Amino acid sequence: MKAGIIGGGMIGAGWARLLRAHGHQAAVYDERPALCDGASSEAEAVAGADVVFEAVAERLEVKRAVLAAAEGAAPPGALIASASSSLLPSVMQEGMQHPERFLVIHPLHPVDLLPVIEVVPGGATAPEAVARAEALVGALGKHPVILRREVPGYVVNRLAAALWREAINLVLAGVVDVRQLDLAASRGPCLGWAVQGPFLTYQLAAPGGLRPFMEHLGPAFQAIWASLATWTEVEPADLQRLARGTEVAYGETGREAQEAVRDRLLKAVLGALTLPHT
Amino acid sequence: MKAGIIGGGMIGAGWARLLRAHGHQAAVYDERPALCDGASSEAEAVAGADVVFEAVAERLEVKRAVLAAAEGAAPPGALIASASSSLLPSVMQEGMQHPERFLVIHPLHPVDLLPVIEVVPGGATAPEAVARAEALVGALGKHPVILRREVPGYVVNRLAAALWREAINLVLAGVVDVRQLDLAASRGPCLGWAVQGPFLTYQLAAPGGLRPFMEHLGPAFQAIWASLATWTEVEPADLQRLARGTEVAYGETGREAQEAVRDRLLKAVLGALTLPHT
Repeated sequence: MKAGIIGGGMIGAGWARLLRAHGHQAAVYDERPALCDGASSEAEAVAGADVVFEAVAERLEVKRAVLAAAEGAAPPGALIASASSSLLPSVMQEGMQHPERFLVIHPLHPVDLLPVIEVVPGGATAPEAVARAEALVGALGKHPVILRREVPGYVVNRLAAALWREAINLVLAGVVDVRQLDLAASRGPCLGWAVQGPFLTYQLAAPGGLRPFMEHLGPAFQAIWASLATWTEVEPADLQRLARGTEVAYGETGREAQEAVRDRLLKAVLGALTLPHT
Repeated sequence: MKAGIIGGGMIGAGWARLLRAHGHQAAVYDERPALCDGASSEAEAVAGADVVFEAVAERLEVKRAVLAAAEGAAPPGALIASASSSLLPSVMQEGMQHPERFLVIHPLHPVDLLPVIEVVPGGATAPEAVARAEALVGALGKHPVILRREVPGYVVNRLAAALWREAINLVLAGVVDVRQLDLAASRGPCLGWAVQGPFLTYQLAAPGGLRPFMEHLGPAFQAIWASLATWTEVEPADLQRLARGTEVAYGETGREAQEAVRDRLLKAVLGALTLPHT
């Protein structure tokens, strides 16, 4: 398979590594010359491609311009996918000549390591394009999560954003600092959910399963849900505080060392999880 | 150390196993005789105890009655801790004779395996009680997360409740089914967060760290945050649908087998994570 990738940032470069690791060809074009990898123009990157991956900035007008150019330069049969992490494919595909071959294929960072890839069709996407995307994701050794309908942030980033908002809230409110928050999340619920996901976790958290669990803890959940943060924007001064708190917590260790530790632990955890589960 | 545990359910029994595994004595009293383990009355369980753990139903009036009885029967120097997962310690300690020796020590299920234990002082808790609780949690091989001030659900269950509400929302809205939701969570963001926690994860998710990451994705986060579920109660008919969906997803595998797999994978993941990390 030959892939044309537009955008050579963390996600685009990750796509290229993943594809090549599975024996496919990948050409990456980025308007920043240092990030180009095998193509010196968008048209060259997508020429003869079986699939086009758009992985540019998360802004609708930027993505639409790239998609329009890619659609014109790619072969008529190419699948065209956006690596957007939040935008609605129905909105992205408006104005395309052939919206039926377009959808979102959303990998997570780091692309090489995290096993889930979301597939999100828009209103004009053909079922055949969904089937091609599902097969492609599976062939790359990843688990496809196929959405039945589009929502902002899809599934993965909605779950992430829900926890992340409350994490920010707890640090800004002075309940815990950045390091204690990360510890509570990583060695607490996220550990159990990495093994099983929330539904199976709570199914096993009370004798009799999910219903008695929720009936027993209903008043507790109501009190918590009623008091969770519901704001929709982080003020610049608060972002400044969070960034400083994160620097205090982790700034002494170099970024490259932290990335190396992350990747080594992710690989070790993934190895542990390849034991049969359920 | 000698511990008196009131309540022999999953959490109380887990406390007893954890304490005994570390060479301490633990006597468990439960009003259901089959769940008693080494004590046939509340007074017998707490007599001579260095620490009392209350692990009864998550209802304020039930806990207050148990705490009043325990306070009367335990030695004057005993630390008195509730394993509540959500109630405010300031409210629980109202009316106690010696509220200064009371706080919440909140372990997660399964108690033996999950490494985080929250310590939550109430307004009347003495600093010395917090120090004793911190030392106790550390001596049991766990990571204490000490809250600077109390909030409903503390830290762990606020993070959990935030993700769980959106997980329920996505399944009820028909975006994905229970199994795909669990897959998206467990092999997606929870995997990364089990390794690092959200702050360090996002610190490494963009060149330059948390601030450019949030500035770049600000509009995306705003759109997602604005569309997340904000209800505070699951309707009985919806709970029925969720319970049925969970049975369809996992009902064919026996509960004991699922618990055994969970514990085996948790141990394997914890083994992977004991590699040194930042």
